[in-house]
Amino acid sequence: MPIKDFKDGQAIKQAFLVNALSKGLTASGQPYLTITLQDKTGQIEGKFWDVKPEIESLIEVGSFLLLDGDVSAYRQMLQVRINSVQRLNPDSIRLEEFTMSAPVPLKQLEEELASTIKKIKDPDYALLTKTLIDQHYDAFITYPAAVRNHHEYTSGLLYHTLSMIKVAESLMPLYPKLNTALIYAAILLHDLGKTVEFTGAVIPKYSTEGKLIGHLQFMASKIYALGETLKIDREKVMLLQHIVLAHHGKPEFGSAVTPLTKEAMFVHMVDDFDAKMTMVDKALEPTEPGQFTNRIFALDDRSFYKAKK
Amino acid sequence: MPIKDFKDGQAIKQAFLVNALSKGLTASGQPYLTITLQDKTGQIEGKFWDVKPEIESLIEVGSFLLLDGDVSAYRQMLQVRINSVQRLNPDSIRLEEFTMSAPVPLKQLEEELASTIKKIKDPDYALLTKTLIDQHYDAFITYPAAVRNHHEYTSGLLYHTLSMIKVAESLMPLYPKLNTALIYAAILLHDLGKTVEFTGAVIPKYSTEGKLIGHLQFMASKIYALGETLKIDREKVMLLQHIVLAHHGKPEFGSAVTPLTKEAMFVHMVDDFDAKMTMVDKALEPTEPGQFTNRIFALDDRSFYKAKK
Amino acid sequence: MPIKDFKDGQAIKQAFLVNALSKGLTASGQPYLTITLQDKTGQIEGKFWDVKPEIESLIEVGSFLLLDGDVSAYRQMLQVRINSVQRLNPDSIRLEEFTMSAPVPLKQLEEELASTIKKIKDPDYALLTKTLIDQHYDAFITYPAAVRNHHEYTSGLLYHTLSMIKVAESLMPLYPKLNTALIYAAILLHDLGKTVEFTGAVIPKYSTEGKLIGHLQFMASKIYALGETLKIDREKVMLLQHIVLAHHGKPEFGSAVTPLTKEAMFVHMVDDFDAKMTMVDKALEPTEPGQFTNRIFALDDRSFYKAKK
Amino acid sequence: MPIKDFKDGQAIKQAFLVNALSKGLTASGQPYLTITLQDKTGQIEGKFWDVKPEIESLIEVGSFLLLDGDVSAYRQMLQVRINSVQRLNPDSIRLEEFTMSAPVPLKQLEEELASTIKKIKDPDYALLTKTLIDQHYDAFITYPAAVRNHHEYTSGLLYHTLSMIKVAESLMPLYPKLNTALIYAAILLHDLGKTVEFTGAVIPKYSTEGKLIGHLQFMASKIYALGETLKIDREKVMLLQHIVLAHHGKPEFGSAVTPLTKEAMFVHMVDDFDAKMTMVDKALEPTEPGQFTNRIFALDDRSFYKAKK
Amino acid sequence: MPIKDFKDGQAIKQAFLVNALSKGLTASGQPYLTITLQDKTGQIEGKFWDVKPEIESLIEVGSFLLLDGDVSAYRQMLQVRINSVQRLNPDSIRLEEFTMSAPVPLKQLEEELASTIKKIKDPDYALLTKTLIDQHYDAFITYPAAVRNHHEYTSGLLYHTLSMIKVAESLMPLYPKLNTALIYAAILLHDLGKTVEFTGAVIPKYSTEGKLIGHLQFMASKIYALGETLKIDREKVMLLQHIVLAHHGKPEFGSAVTPLTKEAMFVHMVDDFDAKMTMVDKALEPTEPGQFTNRIFALDDRSFYKAKK
Amino acid sequence: MPIKDFKDGQAIKQAFLVNALSKGLTASGQPYLTITLQDKTGQIEGKFWDVKPEIESLIEVGSFLLLDGDVSAYRQMLQVRINSVQRLNPDSIRLEEFTMSAPVPLKQLEEELASTIKKIKDPDYALLTKTLIDQHYDAFITYPAAVRNHHEYTSGLLYHTLSMIKVAESLMPLYPKLNTALIYAAILLHDLGKTVEFTGAVIPKYSTEGKLIGHLQFMASKIYALGETLKIDREKVMLLQHIVLAHHGKPEFGSAVTPLTKEAMFVHMVDDFDAKMTMVDKALEPTEPGQFTNRIFALDDRSFYKAKK
Repeated sequence: MPIKDFKDGQAIKQAFLVNALSKGLTASGQPYLTITLQDKTGQIEGKFWDVKPEIESLIEVGSFLLLDGDVSAYRQMLQVRINSVQRLNPDSIRLEEFTMSAPVPLKQLEEELASTIKKIKDPDYALLTKTLIDQHYDAFITYPAAVRNHHEYTSGLLYHTLSMIKVAESLMPLYPKLNTALIYAAILLHDLGKTVEFTGAVIPKYSTEGKLIGHLQFMASKIYALGETLKIDREKVMLLQHIVLAHHGKPEFGSAVTPLTKEAMFVHMVDDFDAKMTMVDKALEPTEPGQFTNRIFALDDRSFYKAKK
Repeated sequence: MPIKDFKDGQAIKQAFLVNALSKGLTASGQPYLTITLQDKTGQIEGKFWDVKPEIESLIEVGSFLLLDGDVSAYRQMLQVRINSVQRLNPDSIRLEEFTMSAPVPLKQLEEELASTIKKIKDPDYALLTKTLIDQHYDAFITYPAAVRNHHEYTSGLLYHTLSMIKVAESLMPLYPKLNTALIYAAILLHDLGKTVEFTGAVIPKYSTEGKLIGHLQFMASKIYALGETLKIDREKVMLLQHIVLAHHGKPEFGSAVTPLTKEAMFVHMVDDFDAKMTMVDKALEPTEPGQFTNRIFALDDRSFYKAKK
Repeated sequence: MPIKDFKDGQAIKQAFLVNALSKGLTASGQPYLTITLQDKTGQIEGKFWDVKPEIESLIEVGSFLLLDGDVSAYRQMLQVRINSVQRLNPDSIRLEEFTMSAPVPLKQLEEELASTIKKIKDPDYALLTKTLIDQHYDAFITYPAAVRNHHEYTSGLLYHTLSMIKVAESLMPLYPKLNTALIYAAILLHDLGKTVEFTGAVIPKYSTEGKLIGHLQFMASKIYALGETLKIDREKVMLLQHIVLAHHGKPEFGSAVTPLTKEAMFVHMVDDFDAKMTMVDKALEPTEPGQFTNRIFALDDRSFYKAKK
Repeated sequence: MPIKDFKDGQAIKQAFLVNALSKGLTASGQPYLTITLQDKTGQIEGKFWDVKPEIESLIEVGSFLLLDGDVSAYRQMLQVRINSVQRLNPDSIRLEEFTMSAPVPLKQLEEELASTIKKIKDPDYALLTKTLIDQHYDAFITYPAAVRNHHEYTSGLLYHTLSMIKVAESLMPLYPKLNTALIYAAILLHDLGKTVEFTGAVIPKYSTEGKLIGHLQFMASKIYALGETLKIDREKVMLLQHIVLAHHGKPEFGSAVTPLTKEAMFVHMVDDFDAKMTMVDKALEPTEPGQFTNRIFALDDRSFYKAKK
Repeated sequence: MPIKDFKDGQAIKQAFLVNALSKGLTASGQPYLTITLQDKTGQIEGKFWDVKPEIESLIEVGSFLLLDGDVSAYRQMLQVRINSVQRLNPDSIRLEEFTMSAPVPLKQLEEELASTIKKIKDPDYALLTKTLIDQHYDAFITYPAAVRNHHEYTSGLLYHTLSMIKVAESLMPLYPKLNTALIYAAILLHDLGKTVEFTGAVIPKYSTEGKLIGHLQFMASKIYALGETLKIDREKVMLLQHIVLAHHGKPEFGSAVTPLTKEAMFVHMVDDFDAKMTMVDKALEPTEPGQFTNRIFALDDRSFYKAKK
Repeated sequence: MPIKDFKDGQAIKQAFLVNALSKGLTASGQPYLTITLQDKTGQIEGKFWDVKPEIESLIEVGSFLLLDGDVSAYRQMLQVRINSVQRLNPDSIRLEEFTMSAPVPLKQLEEELASTIKKIKDPDYALLTKTLIDQHYDAFITYPAAVRNHHEYTSGLLYHTLSMIKVAESLMPLYPKLNTALIYAAILLHDLGKTVEFTGAVIPKYSTEGKLIGHLQFMASKIYALGETLKIDREKVMLLQHIVLAHHGKPEFGSAVTPLTKEAMFVHMVDDFDAKMTMVDKALEPTEPGQFTNRIFALDDRSFYKAKK
């Protein structure tokens, strides 16, 4: 039964992915575990009391568990009291059953990606973009867009990229002098470095390279190296590197340089626009009319108001 | 002859509007004037050497002068050496001959405004918006968008407002849950308070009310007072006041509150987007390919690069 | 027996107001409640172990409970172990028995308020002030001055307002050119908007209007609307609006504009002076000589030293 | 004739103090001097065209000149065209004829100082204060309060100190638990270090000690050393040192520590209050009703509005 | 048996120093204690379940306990389950058995100190330095360098001072114009004020003097007073005071003034260099190659990477 | 005659390099030029009155002029009154006669560079470093270290790099665990990107690449591309890229990432140390004992005190 259909009082026996794990101590000094269990429909908190050390060692973030327990309502939220667990071999698992996916099928996202690449009218930018995406294709179509957010979904990186493309396409007609080939290439590549910055598609962390180099600088290096190999005009390569290095806008938000071309300004603002609208949308969804959302960390920790209608 | 057609070596005798004025001292302690002269095609710097006190007192910012002088090239820029001036009676003047205007005829802007008001589907927001715009109509369609910028043109406020409407209309289909009536009303009203914040349509300054109350708070007060008079639902009025008070985004940029609804976020970002693209565009226009623009004060004093193409 | 007279070992059976509530989990997964109980003499923490769900649902912040329990000393502080509770009908309650009140009787505060209003020599300011206070009179004389502070007392808003009046009256003779009518009006109205910003007199929260509009902007709107209705000279109204909008001093402390008149500067500094001295005083009271107070959040989280002698 | 009575067209021959001096170049490469001339009633700008090198070398900031020239109006301001100058021996000069003085006679300020010292009821604080003031007495009663401001007057330091005493005395009755002896001592000593921080009473600069040690730290060292010599209770000395070190409030305004006692808070706020009201007052004085003052650097460069009345 | 040799399963009965103490509550409302136990080889966490109030009152930070318990492994870390405790008379204790010491024997540090003092070639600086160190000698050679860090060791202050001397001596040959006598004196005295700022050598806290005056200002006062007594040239004393007051670099890091001499700059940077390298070193030590250290609070909360090698 | 030997009253006729140029207007509206003239011994200001347009057009920053004029003392500084100029063909010029050079002969710097490269014990780092330096060798040994500073000298970049090597070598023995091969490589490469960031060795400006990519990111890209080509272990390359990207320390000083390895911390601090000591040294040189230096922009605009000795 999918997590989203769980009800108070149910007994369950089924598989979950362990998304997060913390340990507490009972009054008598015995450990217990709080485990965030996940399937493709959502997450639920599990409590494992009186866990034995030999069992405890089986439970790790990223592992799959066959779990026997009871669902109960606690303070208006459901949780699972865990009776026993058994570790599953990941080879026996279909990963897509345990991870949330983008609101659009991957197939369709891939088609959109392919058709977007075709819109890059400048052959140099088209070649650079295609080559770099091909080098990281599997990661690019499966990685999430962020590591911080527990609810991030598979293919979030691609979904965010294509969502930016849509915003950009809506606005480009209003600013007719923009170099659209450069913009398409830059948006498609701007976050591609995250495929190296994160450790994987499922429950990712920042990699060492992600921390020491950063995805902006990593991708700028890749573009430079490929531009040299393909002997592409230095000005063209530089303009593309610049947008990637500048797309966070300001040094205090991780930008290596500030945007100094119109296209860099445009891409940075499109990224910002789409990211913020998406965050507010997501926070408003579960909020009742007339109430405020939970605080949104990336928006200065503000709570947003959902109008009464 | 329009300013934009002036050439080195010409003698001129024609009328100008005085846009700015500063005074210097020659080595022998005599005053001379540097005057920014303006007509509808542009501005040019004039030098008035050996000006007599009785003449000097005729020359004020905002006055119209019939001027006799010679155009000469100085360090790659034209300037006017002024021989004599005569003050003109403003009643004899057609103002539109001396002020730059928006790139679209006023007639057309007024039609766009009228048709945009009709798009406000909610009758309360439509009534509030129409009533407030009517109260300030003449100023709204003639005032510039800012006082700081010497090149600001007549009807700039309306032009900017309608330009934001276009950006908003491009983006609204991507975020289908937005309250569009509220957004139309808020964009149309967001800067209407500038008709009180500035002292006039031509060469405006900040008014006392503009400094002590601010255009955000002024317009929020007007909306409140009108909402009470018309007995409009408090929630509706509050949501509209909120967007006006929040449209500068952050307190450090003059926002009275931070945006706390999705529509307030949207309007703030649309304003920001359009303002920044417009500034970069304007700065790039006179810049040669391969060069950097002049510094743009409102964009952290950055210079932007114009690609070699 | 009043809370302040509780002793270790006592059995009690009496009524309390629930000021705050949090829930914990015991080692066996059973919930228990930590309840901040309040009467007019103070607050004490109660622990309710093994609380049944049907009882738990009776206990809410703001409710009144008849409670059976035992007082015990724990780590130098008294607490109540709760044995049973019964919810009381609020109609049977005299609220003043359960809330701390200002150090001066309300009667006397009201008389001071009335006599202060009479000191406003300018008839326009007197009329504006009186009308607005009348519209919010009940809330103005009962609301606390802040929501953040658990120890805030009934009528704190009025007490703080009159305390500022005293500081202002001490200082006005030193600065003889001040417009005293404007200052009296501005101080009386400066925080009146809190009657809309907070949700009530007892255990208040920020209202939606409080968050989206803010008490400064709300009161400025009210003054504007009333000024229009009463056809009061715009300059007078503007000066009063300005002080209200400016009394927090700087945008980063929530001020809509910075003080730009001498009277606005004066009112802001008087507010600041009285607020800070009051906070330090309150923190020093329970502190032993030679020791430091608890950290004071609103004073940069500093601890203050109480001299030995 | 005093400067304040100068009129357009007058020929003058009289003595001045040179307050400031800058040099310009005429078109033919000859130097000319702009000299700020001062007497006890004010300042006026002088221009010395075609100055000879041998004359130029006589003119220094702080020197006294017998000057022959003509007063003329230039752009609504009077200035002096200097024909010749002669350097005067400072011994022949009565300094008080050339420096602005506090609005109260020095005699009266000295009496106020003496009577204020007598109000320090604690004998230790009284002794410390008296001894330190005696050590710097001549400077304390003549130095200005600041170096930055051209209009600073003789005895400004003492005048400011006694002005703070008046504000403190107005407020102390409202906060009855304050240690008044400590406050009197601290206010009297808080800026005494400026007698070392500045280079003199007339046209002072910052001394090397002023820059490397600072007047807060210098006075704290003096109090420490004297406390040791007089064997005064360390707690008492420390509390006094603390107020001196903390009276600028925050590190970014030059405070060595932040105020951590109620008395330190009080003295800091009284200093701030009086300083700001005085600055606004001074700026408003020459301003027309309905106009804004010049920008006040120390108040965030703001201009203040003078109401129409 | 030293703490560093403890093994899972051992029963122990031996003495410890209590370094830190916190209290928790079991599900049944009974208190238990978490005690950080310390000997000269390290620290270990102890849990005391079901502690009786009369026993609890014996256990204080800084006390010595004879303790009966069992060592057990919990989540890869050893801890001690405490069965009983007995308080020991501190007179019976050899303190050095219970505190970590600097990586060099105290004897050797004292010799280095003595020989460093001899390197001060200027007799005035030598005398000032020697006299002040003598006044605080016992504290100077035993105090730790900081209070915040649980692992701080005895004689850390002296060790850090001599470590800075070594860095300075390495660099002085590269900058031959430096006043080396001043630098030796300043480094030896720069943190000597910590002997007053901290409350003791073992488990120190900030003293009242430390908070109200600060170790920079305290030592500057001492130097001033001694300079007066010894009648040392004011310039020399001022230069030394300046380095002490400036050695934290910027006001936001607690510096009373910014460095304004080359020697002050040098000493500040040497302090900064050695402090940061030491912190990184300490954090890297227990870290596995290819992993990141724990966050280092004083280095902007960053984690450092230990290369794979 | 070298500039440093010029004397008041001399007539000169010799060649100079034009370092800077500004234009003024005389009272009669005629242009004059202020030219900063340079030879290898220093700089002097020249004034060219009554310059003819056809002559004016010959004079550009970076051009060489044969100049006829008179040296005169003006306000304690020498300047040149220019009578006539003639433009010289740069091919006829020996550049080293007109540019200041590092205090060490280039020959010797090149030898030091060669011997330093040999100290890189790790063959991969040695190869990377050597290859990259070879690619930019001519620029590396001639470029200045900065563009902002008029007094920057030829080969300043190399001199600064080798100066850092000396500081690093002094300190490395104190921190024995450092990876010295990595440090040598990183210091030699850290500013090599400036050969692309600046436009040339003489009177350089920032290049477009310098502004859009930045020398940190440029060099990191080069290292990456070369590392790929040479198939060097990714960890090694990453560690080197990291130091280059992190050597400015903080994002607000232009660092792409913050230092996250001990070696990155070390290199950043060594750079900072040497840069600051050098700036203070240079500013102190022309300063009289007992006086303060000119303000140093890069050191928070501070003036430093030169002790009386």
